[in-house]
Amino acid sequence: MLKLNFRNTDSTVIGEENGLNLEEEFNYYSEKISDIIKSINIRRGQDGEGLKWMNLGYNEETVWYVKEFASLVEGRFDNILVLGIGGSALGGIAVTEALLKPYWNFLTPEQRNGLPRIFFLDNIDPDSINGLLDILDLKKTLVNVITKSGDTAETMSQYMIIKNRMEKELGDNYRRNIVATTDKKMGILRQLADQEGYKIFYVPDDVGGRFSVFSSVGIVPFALLGLNIDEIINGIKDMDIELRETDIRQNIAAQSALINYLMDTKKGKCISVMMPYSSRLKYISDWYAQLWAESLGKEFNRNGERVNGGTTPIRALGATDQHSQLQLYNEGPNNKLITFIRVCEFGTELEIPNIFEYTGIGYLGGKTINDLINAEADSTRVTLADNKRPTMTFTIDKIDEYNIAQLLYMFEVQTAIAGELYNIDAYNQPGVEQARNYTYALMGRAGFEGSAESLKEKIVSV
Amino acid sequence: MLKLNFRNTDSTVIGEENGLNLEEEFNYYSEKISDIIKSINIRRGQDGEGLKWMNLGYNEETVWYVKEFASLVEGRFDNILVLGIGGSALGGIAVTEALLKPYWNFLTPEQRNGLPRIFFLDNIDPDSINGLLDILDLKKTLVNVITKSGDTAETMSQYMIIKNRMEKELGDNYRRNIVATTDKKMGILRQLADQEGYKIFYVPDDVGGRFSVFSSVGIVPFALLGLNIDEIINGIKDMDIELRETDIRQNIAAQSALINYLMDTKKGKCISVMMPYSSRLKYISDWYAQLWAESLGKEFNRNGERVNGGTTPIRALGATDQHSQLQLYNEGPNNKLITFIRVCEFGTELEIPNIFEYTGIGYLGGKTINDLINAEADSTRVTLADNKRPTMTFTIDKIDEYNIAQLLYMFEVQTAIAGELYNIDAYNQPGVEQARNYTYALMGRAGFEGSAESLKEKIVSV
Repeated sequence: MLKLNFRNTDSTVIGEENGLNLEEEFNYYSEKISDIIKSINIRRGQDGEGLKWMNLGYNEETVWYVKEFASLVEGRFDNILVLGIGGSALGGIAVTEALLKPYWNFLTPEQRNGLPRIFFLDNIDPDSINGLLDILDLKKTLVNVITKSGDTAETMSQYMIIKNRMEKELGDNYRRNIVATTDKKMGILRQLADQEGYKIFYVPDDVGGRFSVFSSVGIVPFALLGLNIDEIINGIKDMDIELRETDIRQNIAAQSALINYLMDTKKGKCISVMMPYSSRLKYISDWYAQLWAESLGKEFNRNGERVNGGTTPIRALGATDQHSQLQLYNEGPNNKLITFIRVCEFGTELEIPNIFEYTGIGYLGGKTINDLINAEADSTRVTLADNKRPTMTFTIDKIDEYNIAQLLYMFEVQTAIAGELYNIDAYNQPGVEQARNYTYALMGRAGFEGSAESLKEKIVSV
Repeated sequence: MLKLNFRNTDSTVIGEENGLNLEEEFNYYSEKISDIIKSINIRRGQDGEGLKWMNLGYNEETVWYVKEFASLVEGRFDNILVLGIGGSALGGIAVTEALLKPYWNFLTPEQRNGLPRIFFLDNIDPDSINGLLDILDLKKTLVNVITKSGDTAETMSQYMIIKNRMEKELGDNYRRNIVATTDKKMGILRQLADQEGYKIFYVPDDVGGRFSVFSSVGIVPFALLGLNIDEIINGIKDMDIELRETDIRQNIAAQSALINYLMDTKKGKCISVMMPYSSRLKYISDWYAQLWAESLGKEFNRNGERVNGGTTPIRALGATDQHSQLQLYNEGPNNKLITFIRVCEFGTELEIPNIFEYTGIGYLGGKTINDLINAEADSTRVTLADNKRPTMTFTIDKIDEYNIAQLLYMFEVQTAIAGELYNIDAYNQPGVEQARNYTYALMGRAGFEGSAESLKEKIVSV
């Protein structure tokens, strides 16, 4: 069961200046939180509210369709290559890094039980794309092009390059090696995929990229990699039931949303650090950083007032970043709320042999690496509390499909509740459109030529 | 040649509220900067000043010794495994990710010209360590244990595990498969390595972990991987000469240090984003984040006044993070200074074929991925300037030994100058000791038992 310990954000532990009077705040906000939870649970059924991601645990038809496809192609591919960026990649990366055996792509096909390796191309670096194409046998590769809009420049240019290459290498059969994940009705990719006859998976209406990890965007690769989709769905569903609870004292997503909100607005903690103590959970921080930043980083609130709000997420990793960021966290500006994720039971145990008993490192002998990483997690949060730095800790029982799904779904609900507390639209992203239009202008897309010349001057002059 | 464009931090571009009057500031600070540069160039020759890293370009003996070893073991190993954390790993990761062919560890031995693969273990996650040990043939692996102090718990526990395993698998020969990189005189690793008869490389006196990338900490793995050490040294030396320049108008490290400092202290930009537009440069942000955070995040200045200073580094990546963080950077709090790194000429070119001419993505056809990523970099910085967000851009000619060494050395000098502007000791890290002592207590290290009981209570109760 996912647990949240927020004692180290309380004023009784870290003092009045940096800590919250949680008892008081929970009382004060209990009605508001209850209203928010009721409201989002009504609006999740309505179009245009951006909340349809809350229903992804109940989409049995899609799950059936995806599993069917996975069993159909079982054993046919040695690689899955996902083309996607932002929300089309981050959830997939986070979940597969957490759930596949570490160093999965280095295992032999036998060690992988015949399951494919997984690669994500989520940037447009020519050297990296060329490098990846050099190591992949395209004949044995299933390419999954993921873009909801169907015209994401990065993803579609990757697709054009790879489609062209596959056609040359595979002849007409290349069509069996490409699937598309996109909008049901709109967009160029939908059109092209139809013409080409690719298998198509749909991103459901009203589910934004950063909330799409449990739609076909995520579950297609998960199913192809042999992950237990049913357990993922069970995790979401059980967490969904827990988080319908309207009493803030019983709802961890509401608790963490409120603490994040109050730490920002009352205590000046403008930075939100996400720091799991597990290498396998490293990319959950990346996924979370998009979810949090794009949802809450908004210029205007719903009343049209300029707020320029949102806290800035930081992707950190324990214990590694104790040797990189902890000095700053302990002694620098007290402007951060740090969220730890702690794992009770790792997948494996690793004993440190007792081979240097009478030396200064003798104390490590006979202990386990498991002991050490969790001792470091504990030491770090106690030190930070000593220094009056607020921290919270989520604890998961173990790293498996059920628990990871719970954790991610909880963060999504936390973000939704925070959006209501800030009174902003958590489901749009107006702040990325200008840069996209400038790119269209520089690349010569029809309809955007107008600004190209003045833009070029700006680039040269600045 | 490494170039810096800081126009988008100037008030004439982004307005008085967020921009600096650079002309005025450069005049005002010119004498101070000149004094700082003279001072660090005197102190680099003196013990106890923490500045000996500035001389790493002139350590011909070490370079010779390392190259000699590399040629001696040429062809013997299929893997290099570095055990190290923080400064013992971050520089190595940053440089090898930048300079080796992308997906290096997936290439066949022939494609690697017989050079080894490279793995870094910089965390103590049991699943990841077990996973890595499952894929490595230890007989063909050279293990490089790196810890300056010689008793870093994470590194030494990894070492104990792996040494034990190697001895079982290789018999007495295991000694030929381990080298140690540590302090010349002190520490348990130095002692053990002597007893065992390992080859030892020394971290020079007065060179801290985060400034050690061009000491044997970095150059041993670089030489083993066939990187051109001479070109790395040439890059540092040439940059060192450039950065001895005392005129701020001619010294890019001084310019960027001052802009960072003023943006923090005068304009409230408490966050410093490092965002290269190149996947190969991704881990330079991680290396930089340690350098900047640990050097400047300090509770007290040199006069003993409590300052709790330093800006918080963020590791970002272009173009990927346009789909994750740009919304927040454009519309959220205007509390960031963003530093871009832009590459003029990538190692390869990648054309987007003109296969969908009459569709909405037709404009991409015939262009290159190289065009696209740089168009996105330009679009992003212009948008941010439109929104009055300060940004700077470093441009490197290409990604090779010479240019990467220049870039990293410049960031080190920038950090040193910033330390002087903040008037703090950039070379200590008092803020990590308490957590380390707590860990010793929890793990039962002799001499630390005292606090163990009260600590356990604190953990349970918080």
